[in-house]
Amino acid sequence: MQDNNNRWILAAQCPSRLGTVDVVTRFLKEQRCYITEQHSFDDRLNGGFFIRTEFRPEADGFDADAFEAGFAERAAEFAMRFELTPPGRRMPVVIMVSKADHCLNDLLYRYRVGQLPIDIRAIVSNHPDLAPLAEWHDLPYHHFPITPETKLEQEAQVARVIEETGAELVILARYMQVLSSGMCERLSGRAINIHHSLLPGFKGAKPYHQAYDKGVKLVGATAHYINDDLDEGPIITQGVEPVGHTDYPEDLVAKGRDIECLTLARAVALHVERRVFLHARRTVVFDR
Amino acid sequence: MQDNNNRWILAAQCPSRLGTVDVVTRFLKEQRCYITEQHSFDDRLNGGFFIRTEFRPEADGFDADAFEAGFAERAAEFAMRFELTPPGRRMPVVIMVSKADHCLNDLLYRYRVGQLPIDIRAIVSNHPDLAPLAEWHDLPYHHFPITPETKLEQEAQVARVIEETGAELVILARYMQVLSSGMCERLSGRAINIHHSLLPGFKGAKPYHQAYDKGVKLVGATAHYINDDLDEGPIITQGVEPVGHTDYPEDLVAKGRDIECLTLARAVALHVERRVFLHARRTVVFDR
Amino acid sequence: MQDNNNRWILAAQCPSRLGTVDVVTRFLKEQRCYITEQHSFDDRLNGGFFIRTEFRPEADGFDADAFEAGFAERAAEFAMRFELTPPGRRMPVVIMVSKADHCLNDLLYRYRVGQLPIDIRAIVSNHPDLAPLAEWHDLPYHHFPITPETKLEQEAQVARVIEETGAELVILARYMQVLSSGMCERLSGRAINIHHSLLPGFKGAKPYHQAYDKGVKLVGATAHYINDDLDEGPIITQGVEPVGHTDYPEDLVAKGRDIECLTLARAVALHVERRVFLHARRTVVFDR
Amino acid sequence: MQDNNNRWILAAQCPSRLGTVDVVTRFLKEQRCYITEQHSFDDRLNGGFFIRTEFRPEADGFDADAFEAGFAERAAEFAMRFELTPPGRRMPVVIMVSKADHCLNDLLYRYRVGQLPIDIRAIVSNHPDLAPLAEWHDLPYHHFPITPETKLEQEAQVARVIEETGAELVILARYMQVLSSGMCERLSGRAINIHHSLLPGFKGAKPYHQAYDKGVKLVGATAHYINDDLDEGPIITQGVEPVGHTDYPEDLVAKGRDIECLTLARAVALHVERRVFLHARRTVVFDR
Repeated sequence: MQDNNNRWILAAQCPSRLGTVDVVTRFLKEQRCYITEQHSFDDRLNGGFFIRTEFRPEADGFDADAFEAGFAERAAEFAMRFELTPPGRRMPVVIMVSKADHCLNDLLYRYRVGQLPIDIRAIVSNHPDLAPLAEWHDLPYHHFPITPETKLEQEAQVARVIEETGAELVILARYMQVLSSGMCERLSGRAINIHHSLLPGFKGAKPYHQAYDKGVKLVGATAHYINDDLDEGPIITQGVEPVGHTDYPEDLVAKGRDIECLTLARAVALHVERRVFLHARRTVVFDR
Repeated sequence: MQDNNNRWILAAQCPSRLGTVDVVTRFLKEQRCYITEQHSFDDRLNGGFFIRTEFRPEADGFDADAFEAGFAERAAEFAMRFELTPPGRRMPVVIMVSKADHCLNDLLYRYRVGQLPIDIRAIVSNHPDLAPLAEWHDLPYHHFPITPETKLEQEAQVARVIEETGAELVILARYMQVLSSGMCERLSGRAINIHHSLLPGFKGAKPYHQAYDKGVKLVGATAHYINDDLDEGPIITQGVEPVGHTDYPEDLVAKGRDIECLTLARAVALHVERRVFLHARRTVVFDR
Repeated sequence: MQDNNNRWILAAQCPSRLGTVDVVTRFLKEQRCYITEQHSFDDRLNGGFFIRTEFRPEADGFDADAFEAGFAERAAEFAMRFELTPPGRRMPVVIMVSKADHCLNDLLYRYRVGQLPIDIRAIVSNHPDLAPLAEWHDLPYHHFPITPETKLEQEAQVARVIEETGAELVILARYMQVLSSGMCERLSGRAINIHHSLLPGFKGAKPYHQAYDKGVKLVGATAHYINDDLDEGPIITQGVEPVGHTDYPEDLVAKGRDIECLTLARAVALHVERRVFLHARRTVVFDR
Repeated sequence: MQDNNNRWILAAQCPSRLGTVDVVTRFLKEQRCYITEQHSFDDRLNGGFFIRTEFRPEADGFDADAFEAGFAERAAEFAMRFELTPPGRRMPVVIMVSKADHCLNDLLYRYRVGQLPIDIRAIVSNHPDLAPLAEWHDLPYHHFPITPETKLEQEAQVARVIEETGAELVILARYMQVLSSGMCERLSGRAINIHHSLLPGFKGAKPYHQAYDKGVKLVGATAHYINDDLDEGPIITQGVEPVGHTDYPEDLVAKGRDIECLTLARAVALHVERRVFLHARRTVVFDR
């Protein structure tokens, strides 16, 4: 949140090397950009440097294209990848759902009141059930049914929506289908899933029933980037909730809804505010 | 703790059947015992009835033996097992440790200030390191070294201490040896272990290193009764702590210490206050 | 939640006296009602006995009226007030709001999916803003504007809606008007308010701005019964959220929304499931 | 934590002005210092810039004196105050206590196992009770009794110990005396107190009893710098714990001990790792 009117974000990562912070901060000063918040981290064990800077141009007429072109020259020397995000930018997203509506409902509320800087371009589902919810929010809803035989075909339909809408992020808000390897690869680093357990515990189907059988005293949810290895993608954030002997499996399902919503919304916020960096099988998260 | 001066505890369990609560509460009334707190639960899925009652005898000269004998007759009809605990009773315990001292230090502090109603009869270790800590608290310390060859022999030494001290509970406060099947069976339902992960995630050795490798955003600890299946015994309670990308494995180890101490101490308190009921592979916990 | 199909609730309170539990449990057994969950508590400092029982009639043709009449006779001896709640009963409620919609939206979602056993009879507001939300959920929305001069008049309108709809509970879901003494008295014990601070800290207006000025590191929300003393009514439950130096007042407002929703929804669930007992200026809450 | 062997910390603050980050990072690069972690923040509402940098000199023979002298020249232009902390430095502290020993015991444990980079130079108390604990840890213990008449005299004794031991931080680990204005001023910014409530709720004496009377459902602890206004000093961190109707005042006292210990230890760690910046009546905390 904060004063978004003139808050730019520069997020960058590169191999570790002397001068990585300096190349960013010196350029910003030269461009008369005032840094309001900055985090940097160097991963001593896995290698890799990560930086996120919020800044406010002090001079009038800040030229983003010129900034990017100028910084690209400096960054090249460090093999630094970077992304500049203008104030108030809303990231285009597509949301995928099945029948459960709690995460979708929660995302739509945050979207509607402007709490999440996203621009929902479409909602895609393998079921027709949540169309009315999309309709009330005036959002396009695509019902693409799926069977084992038509999986790749259906995924091609989904991919087309993602491409045509220019979505930069796909949110799997309790989409209950396993994506194919090809789809996972295509969406690598830009698809966030919510799994209803504290991974790596209770992977796969019916995690609350698994949790009940095991008799755990905490249940939780994990938001992670998808990859080809089911429920094994890099974790962004996790939430947790105490449970007890009076909670039967259906109670765990009910209790878990809140923590799923909060965890997914939090992960999406972290991602769209450029606070998350993917690095091998892990994430660096510059949380507030 | 509350007013322990005259607070008796009656804990019981039996198969589900009409009248299970009544048989307890009617007897208490007949004995002129005033119930100050009561919980009961019937497990619809796994079967089984559980009840815990705190009461205060209203008449002078409460006779515990007569009470037990009288109630045993009534309970028999329901195949009800029960336990009566007098006010201020301190359960005799043996604590087992290896080299890490944080859980032991924490238990000894709570013991010393009277926060845990336990009577520590002995501390047993496969290493000599923590003897000075025991000594400062005036507690007997037994150093029984162990090798793969002498495991059963060493366990026999431990068993002898448990037996001779009359310990009713064994607390494995970061004891880093896997107990044999025989020992597990012998201690069934009366040995609590602290495992430094959110089970079922990260069983076995070096769970914090496993957690680091996986990149989780929450670590935790699990207090459970031991059984023959390593790190699979019935869970009593679990604690959790957020972590991030700046936490290297050694940081997780350091951060985890607090939550291990709190989780183990909490499990011991629940057990000695007769709040925990074992039922198949799960627990019923009447928490405050 | 649980198996609601045949779960009755008996909640009762009375002055402390030997036999208070027995009078309940014995009657239930006589009526062939199986107790699935029970909590009782005797308040040693403030006096007072409280009991909540969930039970399942074992015989066919359970007659609630006969049960109530029969139990009333027994209860009279103990000056015991009680309430019997049939399975699946949805408590009639009226929700009061102003302009902020997050708590209302959250309650409506839980209502729609059946997560809260309430029957929303009307939504009342001093502003027209939230009418569309009510409309989408097919709920009557009453816009009763208020000025300092028309306060009592407006409250009479509100009171009429409450009465005509048979509402047993009024939920103040961020209703930003102070109720008059008369209205507070009329709604005593049946109106729950959500205040956006950890009471007793930051009473009154703009608590998040007060929290920012004070530089606290935790903000929270408090759900309480209203009484004549502003923000001083008996507390049902409280929620909390960490904050930091990067959180400006508007960030606290945004961050606080989630915890307000969760805390209010939790308080309403506790109330309608008959888990809350009012006793002087405090509550006894038999949480799950 | 982390690889402390060669981790230097540079912490600085100054009025907001273009180039504040650059002046730090450029100098570090020139000195061939590799930044492993950095946070900066500019306080838009209250003014003020804050930066904390962890770095590792890449060249052999890093000269701290030369570094400080060189940086002082650059910093002067920005009216920047800064502090350079060498790897493994243990801050000299004096701990003040009364009779309650839980916070002291906790700090001593962390100190003994090297979890807190502090060097405890002395323990000061207005009571003799905790001398044995100090003795077991081989630490000097000064018993300075206090009466209303001898307060200033006693404080002079305390001040002498602080001065003679070179303590840079005074930890009030449940020291139950209100310090005089003079003493507060003398210790401004370098004395941390733990108050056993969620400030600003329940200031002053017996906060747990106040909390019980109010019927709150959460209790907590607040670690703050002391100032002349009792329990109003800038807050560093706060901890919280759920409570319920079964918790009588003495239970709150017992339950609160853990959260007091954790909150105070956490505040001390944040302070000695130079993560806390004082700014008017608030703190900026660059937490991990």
